[in-house]
Amino acid sequence: MIETITLYDIPSPIVPGIAWSPNAWKVRYALNYKGLPHKTEWVEYPDIKDKCIELGIEPTSTRSDGSLYYSIPAIYDPNTKSSIADSYRIVLYLERTYPNTPRLMPKGTEALQSFPLYSHAMGPDIPILKFNILPTFRLLNPRSQEFYRSVREKIHRVKLEEIEPKGEKAEVMWKRVKESYDKLDGYYRLSGGPYLMGETLSYVDIAIASLSAWIRSLHGKDSDKWKDIISWNDGRWGRLVESLEKYATIN
Amino acid sequence: MIETITLYDIPSPIVPGIAWSPNAWKVRYALNYKGLPHKTEWVEYPDIKDKCIELGIEPTSTRSDGSLYYSIPAIYDPNTKSSIADSYRIVLYLERTYPNTPRLMPKGTEALQSFPLYSHAMGPDIPILKFNILPTFRLLNPRSQEFYRSVREKIHRVKLEEIEPKGEKAEVMWKRVKESYDKLDGYYRLSGGPYLMGETLSYVDIAIASLSAWIRSLHGKDSDKWKDIISWNDGRWGRLVESLEKYATIN
Repeated sequence: MIETITLYDIPSPIVPGIAWSPNAWKVRYALNYKGLPHKTEWVEYPDIKDKCIELGIEPTSTRSDGSLYYSIPAIYDPNTKSSIADSYRIVLYLERTYPNTPRLMPKGTEALQSFPLYSHAMGPDIPILKFNILPTFRLLNPRSQEFYRSVREKIHRVKLEEIEPKGEKAEVMWKRVKESYDKLDGYYRLSGGPYLMGETLSYVDIAIASLSAWIRSLHGKDSDKWKDIISWNDGRWGRLVESLEKYATIN
Repeated sequence: MIETITLYDIPSPIVPGIAWSPNAWKVRYALNYKGLPHKTEWVEYPDIKDKCIELGIEPTSTRSDGSLYYSIPAIYDPNTKSSIADSYRIVLYLERTYPNTPRLMPKGTEALQSFPLYSHAMGPDIPILKFNILPTFRLLNPRSQEFYRSVREKIHRVKLEEIEPKGEKAEVMWKRVKESYDKLDGYYRLSGGPYLMGETLSYVDIAIASLSAWIRSLHGKDSDKWKDIISWNDGRWGRLVESLEKYATIN
């Protein structure tokens, strides 16, 4: 019998169901899709580093100032006594460790699945991020808010409230978000199916759905932003997120 | 019986075997791998636009100044009376039109194969390009040279001779080329095989091999640049190009 895997995620007191982090959603969708027993442990931003060190997880990367970057999502799997961070690496681990569960990386596509297709379509500055930073801050608990503000303000060198584009700038940038989804749609049209591999759901769809659902969490179902996104490309993005609802249980 | 497909390519009087264009090589490797009868027709740079219009090929894209960009490689397939430009689109066409020939885009991976992995690894400014512009100019016929110079100098806003980095700048930029290959190597290591899909050769390998072989054509087999590249990542890139030599016949 497979023992319960722990998924470490960042909580929100506001988002229905608590879970909002797009990268953690990639892993949660995968765990549910694979039918692997799991539970979530909630970790606030300032505690991520200590939690990773406690679990023996290596930093995901090094920041440009040389400091180590520890990140969530992470999992601890008691079946193999393994701790892993980074959503792609976690799902790859699940694919390899539990080969008899439904696959998200069909044979031979592991490397092809690792492409950050979403951010590639968005371009190097990922315009959607600027719209999401302040709403992300707002949905966090106070301890995480403080930490999040200090990190983002160091990176962007302006007050958190000034990162979001306003007026005409916002319009131009939102148009670029639409163009990115159009580009993604071009990839999907090549496949001819609802998924990037045609009829077969794979990791790259989960990644794109998670990032789209993030916008819904941040801005709300009734926001103009979410309404825009689900109106683009014949409703592809809303349908993609909906098709994963049955794997959206938060344990 | 399949009638002979025409591949339109740009000639060089210097490169052994005449063919040097990396994008045309992607198509040539594919035609040979699939065993499709084909012949090459050589087109000089200033004649590409007229040739495309004659064949009824749409421009590949629009330049930032609004002018239409016609490009080679292109093919004319008398079996279906189709003319197509752009290496990915041509290979996708061959996959769909000749499904009983060896596949380069295994089922479901058509869209995943379209990802420009090489330029993604290189980053938005693709550092190798700056090293390749002057050598590309040098291997062309005079008519193409004149055209190539005028286009590049308009894009880069400096004399062709000044595009290539020199001294310390060149060292830094070449280090970035190595880092890009290291990144590509990381993708290949995920697959565990000589190819990005493991043991299965696919379009993305052909694209990476074509771009690597381009550096060999431009700088020569005995150049430091080529020697560097084949020494990186345990010799992966030399082996990849070698593994395609049997599909490198120029018809």
